[in-house]
Amino acid sequence: MTKELVFGHKNPDTDAIAAAIGLAYLEKQDGYDTEAVALGPVNAETKFVLDYFGVKAPRIVEAARPETDKVMLVDHNEPQQSISDIAELTVTHVVDHHRISGFETAKPLYYRAAPYGCCSTILTQMYSEEGIDIPKEIAGLMMSAIISDTLLLKSPTTTAIDRDALQALADIAGVDNYEEYGIKMLKAGTNVDAKSDKELIDGDAKSFVLGGKNVRIDQINVVDLEDINKRLPEIKKAMETESKEENYDLFLVLATNVLTSNSELIIVGEPKDLVEKAFNNKFADNDVMNLPGVVSRKKQVVPPLTEQLDPEK
Amino acid sequence: MTKELVFGHKNPDTDAIAAAIGLAYLEKQDGYDTEAVALGPVNAETKFVLDYFGVKAPRIVEAARPETDKVMLVDHNEPQQSISDIAELTVTHVVDHHRISGFETAKPLYYRAAPYGCCSTILTQMYSEEGIDIPKEIAGLMMSAIISDTLLLKSPTTTAIDRDALQALADIAGVDNYEEYGIKMLKAGTNVDAKSDKELIDGDAKSFVLGGKNVRIDQINVVDLEDINKRLPEIKKAMETESKEENYDLFLVLATNVLTSNSELIIVGEPKDLVEKAFNNKFADNDVMNLPGVVSRKKQVVPPLTEQLDPEK
Repeated sequence: MTKELVFGHKNPDTDAIAAAIGLAYLEKQDGYDTEAVALGPVNAETKFVLDYFGVKAPRIVEAARPETDKVMLVDHNEPQQSISDIAELTVTHVVDHHRISGFETAKPLYYRAAPYGCCSTILTQMYSEEGIDIPKEIAGLMMSAIISDTLLLKSPTTTAIDRDALQALADIAGVDNYEEYGIKMLKAGTNVDAKSDKELIDGDAKSFVLGGKNVRIDQINVVDLEDINKRLPEIKKAMETESKEENYDLFLVLATNVLTSNSELIIVGEPKDLVEKAFNNKFADNDVMNLPGVVSRKKQVVPPLTEQLDPEK
Repeated sequence: MTKELVFGHKNPDTDAIAAAIGLAYLEKQDGYDTEAVALGPVNAETKFVLDYFGVKAPRIVEAARPETDKVMLVDHNEPQQSISDIAELTVTHVVDHHRISGFETAKPLYYRAAPYGCCSTILTQMYSEEGIDIPKEIAGLMMSAIISDTLLLKSPTTTAIDRDALQALADIAGVDNYEEYGIKMLKAGTNVDAKSDKELIDGDAKSFVLGGKNVRIDQINVVDLEDINKRLPEIKKAMETESKEENYDLFLVLATNVLTSNSELIIVGEPKDLVEKAFNNKFADNDVMNLPGVVSRKKQVVPPLTEQLDPEK
């Protein structure tokens, strides 16, 4: 049996790491020779989680070949968010909670998607359906992923299934008070002062192709938006530099206060007018737009942008 | 709640009809307002099945709007195989057992795919996972779909899951001897003499875009390949006429003997040399290639063709 690598998207967040470990374990029980890997170093939040549950961070890989030509994807499907040699690989399994875009296969495969707040929630269902027990430490990682993706169930992406899965995983992981744990975890991931401007704009960034434009969207979680505002000129400069280097037409940074569930959107590039239309709102002279109540890139940012920039979709 | 239409691919076969009815019923139990419809009239085999289990053929629709803008797809995902206004619709659910190609959404959705022999097999799993009983007549349709897609479990697409599902569905449907029923059903669908040349080449045809070429692949089930060979000049002429009208670069007709599991492949158009490479075989002067043991378009025809015509995929 060919070995298969299992990984989440580039710039891995807690869900990308937890779901990779969760799916690798589940499929191993089904007889696959799997290894969970990561497409980059873990962030501060994920490091907190791995340390807390005593799990080693997955090995970082740049490409799958020549190790293997078979892979399983979690928490993403769009090729530009995936491993560098994705076009040469056979994807045998996908577990994801995002829109489907640019994903093409030559053969039938296992694809499991649901519009839940977190990929680890789908995995929790799959374990249950197959009657396989989730090991305690993996349940801890998957619980943390749900807290991370839904901002402690406060994001509008949250579904009743996420709530149930979070409670079930907390029980397995032996975490009595997941709210208390979750706030500690979220804070561990928001130490903005410790990060360079480049680290900030790269940390949770994803690339999209919308209406032929290369669009980059980063999200920064904070506990005080002032931590971003005081560095705005430097952050915008880093966004401009990277846009030139990487050929982005549009670079957006969504800075989200995880305690109040409000965001600011920083823009570099064009089409600015369509972004304003998408949110029915204006950028101030400093290129920042207030977005009260917006916390989800996937549900509250990408869909309205897609509608304006790529109305064919 | 918006009404949602549930349908399989154009030129519906038994699985496209059975899976649409099966998913519409399942999702109705989950609270969705669903109606199973069809993108064309049912074929002779499906008519036999519907008559046998006393189920009315689904209403035929050309487009979903203005009836609704939400749909669920079964047994396909590629837009050229779907409803005419698919680009303007929101797909909320997909259940499919084919490769994924050209499928794009703006938002997350439910997507359930597995590389099984039949879409109705995946549905059987979903009913079981959700603990919902399959009504007797729907079990009969889904059982028939598995027999149809796997040619009574003889196609190489057949998995152990298909076998188990077929037996379970036969039990629910009250069919004691599914082999006997299945041969009657397959024969009902192979009355080639009753069909015009155009009906033959359209009957189970699907469109693909491979390496920028418009490729049309039809499959005709027969109990005697001589029924096709005696009409070969007329069939090729009909393929040529339709290729011109519909702008197909390559038209392939796979004539399959369902009793012996052998096929003949008829070609009109180009690139002929790459098709020969794909099957490591030659077309005779009459543009027919023998393909012993080939019965599955999905597993034995589309993948080698894709590899030759669209090596990027």
